[in-house]
Formats: sequence, C-alpha cells, structure tokens
Amino acid sequence: MKLVTYLVKETELTIREQMAASRVGWLQGGWIVDIGFAQEWATLNKGIPITRVLPVDMLGLLEAETEGRQILNQVADALRGERPDSLHVEGEPVALPLAEAKLSAPLPNPRSFRDFYAFEQHVKATRGRRGLDMIPEWYEIPVFYFSNPHSIHGPDVEVEKPKATEALDYELEVGFVIGKEGKNIPAERALDHIAGLCILNDWSARDLQQKEMKVGLGPAKGKDFATSVGPWLVTLDELQHRRDGDRFDLTMTARVNGRELSRGNVADLHYTFAQMIEQASRHCTLKPGDLIGSGTVGTGCILELGTETHRWLQPEDEVELEIEGLGVLKNRIVAERDTQ
Amino acid sequence: MKLVTYLVKETELTIREQMAASRVGWLQGGWIVDIGFAQEWATLNKGIPITRVLPVDMLGLLEAETEGRQILNQVADALRGERPDSLHVEGEPVALPLAEAKLSAPLPNPRSFRDFYAFEQHVKATRGRRGLDMIPEWYEIPVFYFSNPHSIHGPDVEVEKPKATEALDYELEVGFVIGKEGKNIPAERALDHIAGLCILNDWSARDLQQKEMKVGLGPAKGKDFATSVGPWLVTLDELQHRRDGDRFDLTMTARVNGRELSRGNVADLHYTFAQMIEQASRHCTLKPGDLIGSGTVGTGCILELGTETHRWLQPEDEVELEIEGLGVLKNRIVAERDTQ
Repeated sequence: MKLVTYLVKETELTIREQMAASRVGWLQGGWIVDIGFAQEWATLNKGIPITRVLPVDMLGLLEAETEGRQILNQVADALRGERPDSLHVEGEPVALPLAEAKLSAPLPNPRSFRDFYAFEQHVKATRGRRGLDMIPEWYEIPVFYFSNPHSIHGPDVEVEKPKATEALDYELEVGFVIGKEGKNIPAERALDHIAGLCILNDWSARDLQQKEMKVGLGPAKGKDFATSVGPWLVTLDELQHRRDGDRFDLTMTARVNGRELSRGNVADLHYTFAQMIEQASRHCTLKPGDLIGSGTVGTGCILELGTETHRWLQPEDEVELEIEGLGVLKNRIVAERDTQ
Repeated sequence: MKLVTYLVKETELTIREQMAASRVGWLQGGWIVDIGFAQEWATLNKGIPITRVLPVDMLGLLEAETEGRQILNQVADALRGERPDSLHVEGEPVALPLAEAKLSAPLPNPRSFRDFYAFEQHVKATRGRRGLDMIPEWYEIPVFYFSNPHSIHGPDVEVEKPKATEALDYELEVGFVIGKEGKNIPAERALDHIAGLCILNDWSARDLQQKEMKVGLGPAKGKDFATSVGPWLVTLDELQHRRDGDRFDLTMTARVNGRELSRGNVADLHYTFAQMIEQASRHCTLKPGDLIGSGTVGTGCILELGTETHRWLQPEDEVELEIEGLGVLKNRIVAERDTQ
C-alpha cells in the first residue's frame, strides 16, 4: 500500500466541514482513496464492522499500530476491484484524482528523527576527499545522530536556502517510519516494526556543518533547516518482489535540474534496516511515528562528488530524488525568506 | 510560578473520573494547585471569565502560548491569599498536599530535545584530560546536538543502567522549555520564548559515547536511554531577584549518595540562554514544548572529575542534582530490566 497525507483544499472544506485539513489516503491507480470515507463505505456497502474508527491523520494511524493496519487492510480489501471514482458516501466522493491533490510529507510531524550513516561508499569517499582513512569503529556499530523533527518538508514544496550557507547540498537517502513500539528489538523481528519506506532528502549546509562538527557534536545547524520526505510511505508488502531477506533491491537516483548526479541501490546498505532498528532500540524505546534515515548512498550528494562535478545548490535549482517503488521526491530551492 | 506535572492516583481516578492520568498544577506552600480546578474555582467564586479553558497537560498548556500563560496568571492571581486546602469545586479539592503527590517530569513528552555545550570549564577540563587543547570554533558559535525526546524521566523514578555500559555518568545541567513559537529569534527578545527553567540530568554511558563519536556523529546511544528533568518548571519571574540581564545567579550542585561531587553556577555559562535560542532558531522554527539543555557545568560529571574522585555509577547509587530556586532532582540507579 502506498500511503499519502493529502491536504484538503479550502473549497472542499466547505463541503466536508468536519474534515481535518490534512488526511491519509492510499494510492489506487490515479486516485487517492481517503481512509476515513473508505472505512465508512466498506461498513455501509460490504458490512465490514467498525471495531475501531481509523484515525485520519498519519501519526494517529501509526499509533493505532498493528490493529490499525489490520483494519486498514480489511477496508482496502473490501474496496479491491471497485473503481475509486464510482464510490460515494452520503453523496461525497470516497476518492479524489491524484493529479488534483496536494500531497504533504506522508508523516509531516514525526515524533523523532534519527539519521544513520550506513552506506560504506559514502563514508569512504567523503573521508577520502579529506585524506582520511576509514574508521575501524564504523564496521563495529551502525552509528546515527538525532536530528530535527520539526523541519519536515513534503514533495513539491520550496526549500529555503539558509542565508548563512554558501554550500547547500542534497543527500539521497532511503527512510523508514516506525509503526510499532518496542525496546531491545532483535534484528530478526525488526522489520515488523516498520510501517513503510520513503525517500528522504537530508538537506545539508556543508559550511555550517563543518564548523560545528569541529567542536565534536552534531551535526545540528548544518541539517536542521529542512528534511524532505515522501511522496508516499510504502508498506513492505508492496516491495516483496524486490526483497531478499532483510535487503531490498531498489535503484536510487538523484537529478539536479534534470541532470543525473547520483546513482546507487538500497541493497548497497552495509547495515540493514533491521540492524538499524536493533541498534536504535537498544536500551531505548522506539515509538510509532519515529522517522529513521539510512544516511547518504554512495555518490548521493555534492560533498562526495566534488564541486568540480556540480556547484553547491542555489535558488531556482530543482532537485529530484527517485527510488524504485517509492516514487519521485522533487523540491525547488528558493532564497530564505525574512519571516520569523 | 513553579509548574509541575503530577500523576493522579488510581484511587483518585475513581472520584475524578473525567480527569487525565497526569495533570498540571502549580506549587503554593506545601500544596499543588490543579490548574483545571483552579480555573473553575476562579470562575465560580471570583467571576474570572473563561475566555479559553486551560489545557490540563503541560504540552497543551505550552502550546496555548502567551494567551495560555496570561489566563493562568489571572487564575493564580484570583487564588492569591486563599488557603489552598480550603478551596473546593463541586465538593472536590482544588489542591492536594505536595507530600502526597507523585510528580512526573514537568514536561514528560517534549517535542524535541537539544543539548548545548555552553560551560567553558567543562569543555576545557574534559579535553584537557585527553591532552587536547581548547577548540577555537567553540568561542565562535554555541554548538549543540539533538538528543532523544522519548526517554524523559521525572524526579524520584529509577533510572536503568544499560547493560552495555560500564561507565555510567550523570551530568549536572540547567534546562529550559520553549513556550512560544519562533524562527530567527534575536537574543534581545529570546527570553520571551522561555516558558521556564528546570534541572536536567543528561545521563551518559561514556564507553558507548566514546566509541560512537569516533565515527564522527552524535552522541546518540551514549545518551538516548535516559534524561531526567524536574522537579518543576520555574517561570522566569520567580527568579527575577537572581537575574542580571540575561544571566541568572543560581548555585548548582550534585551529590552522589549524599557526597557532594559537583559545584558551579548558572551564571558561569559562556553562552546565555538568549544566545542559545538565537542559535537554535536560526533558519529553524522553535516550537512550544521544545526542551533545551545547557550542557554540563564545570565539575558537573564524573568524566570531568576523573574516576580517582568517584567510580562510575552503579545500581543502588542515588544521584541528587540541586539548583537554587529550581529544587532538587533525585534519581536512583537500578540494573536494566529485560522488558521489551
């Protein structure tokens, strides 16, 4: 299932007065099927009992954990084979055309955000550029840092280049979201805790990052202004045909103004998602709505490619990240606005 | 005002059925005055109009921003001079004796957690122990890292020593909580964004921290298992008599099993709270409910004092942090439990 958070337009708000301003749906053909209306439709037309009303925001849905997803699957099963545009509840359409919808990040408000450093080629190459050898400890433990959960951007929104940076970069990463609480989760059971995968762009101000990291903490200001996530949250069953054990064979690419700069594969991860979850949850509770990034894939940023390959990003640049099965995440850079 | 979050006992839940399991109150003498019941009392007995019902959880109260705090002050003014134990609403007491209450962290669920590194003596001394000079960049920018917002512990709860560490340490810090949203907040206006100060113990597993930081990120696993906060959230007007501009003259001490190990003062901060907010909010939105730590005060941890002064912490150790005007934050160490 490809889950989305979509924004309800103001003109629709007058019709659907009681609706939240953003709601969760799933993609079906060229349509977004609203999970709230779909549950109502399935109850009225297919006799699916409402044991629990599904929350219609993504964080709420994730916090409903396994039970919530089971109900969601039941509802989706009830709609299978129906034409989304033919479904109505009390005269209101259950689905809307994807082309007419505005998507936000699938999870606009993660409860926390961890970012790993799990692609070997990226670590080797960026250290190599500074004349540094590989760090032995990197092979012993999957290392991550906590980042800012408040700067999540969705697809197709503008990303402001902070005034203070002259070295704005993108980072091509795969992300995942926790859908089931747990502590000391062993790798063997870890994938059960993933609600879905998504593309993640960990925008970076390299000059700010380099300076603060000399002090030995972070990164923080080099990363806290924006992280793009989306366009969808894709459940693992959708990717079964590209899965081999804990690994997923999904090509990753990045383009700046249409020119391909980065190419890799999720399968290149040295540490699997399962190993990341095992590490993150050691002596520590993971909660539904926690967002976790993989770190940058090899060739996945300008820092690694060098400014001889591409200059740092500037206003008007358009950055597109693509991962097989997870869609395309596109953002345009603009100058920082003066708003407080 | 000294704000607390207190847990409602199960026996009380039967009486106050509609109440949340934890609620916000303020300290008055030896009493906790419940803000929800107090608002009701002030309306019924003093004619204070209810323009907005105060949220009775701390995050909700913080998110009500300036308006919420103005109403709270109005309610507290209405109760001034009354004996808390004499106040009732529909037969229910408005206040309960502090001695009978169980406090949780004043904000058990911060929306994010940043920790600075703002006491010069601590940075100098810990680097000195490793034969390292001071970092010039430390004097140019107040540096911080993001940490785990999900492991907040209140006063008097047990802290589990992670099995993986043999070098458990405390850190004596002062913390503050954001009470008003803002971006690019200048230092001159920054204190308006603070809801209150609190004691903060940033428990640290030094062996885990040292290893992960060799990879150049974090700290994360060295810090993510527990952070103690409390016992109160103290609004700045309470500390006016110890304030000089943006600086607060408040003695800080730490005792392990009754023996004083650490002594410093909030006024020793190289970077003020205002400068921390200016830095944290640069090109980045701070939200109500964001928790920020100062970093460790000089002499404020075993890492700095050396294990010749005190061994690493072990189960049964009791650690008490005290800051003038902010109370005492006490926790006992226990072995990690096997729960998942």
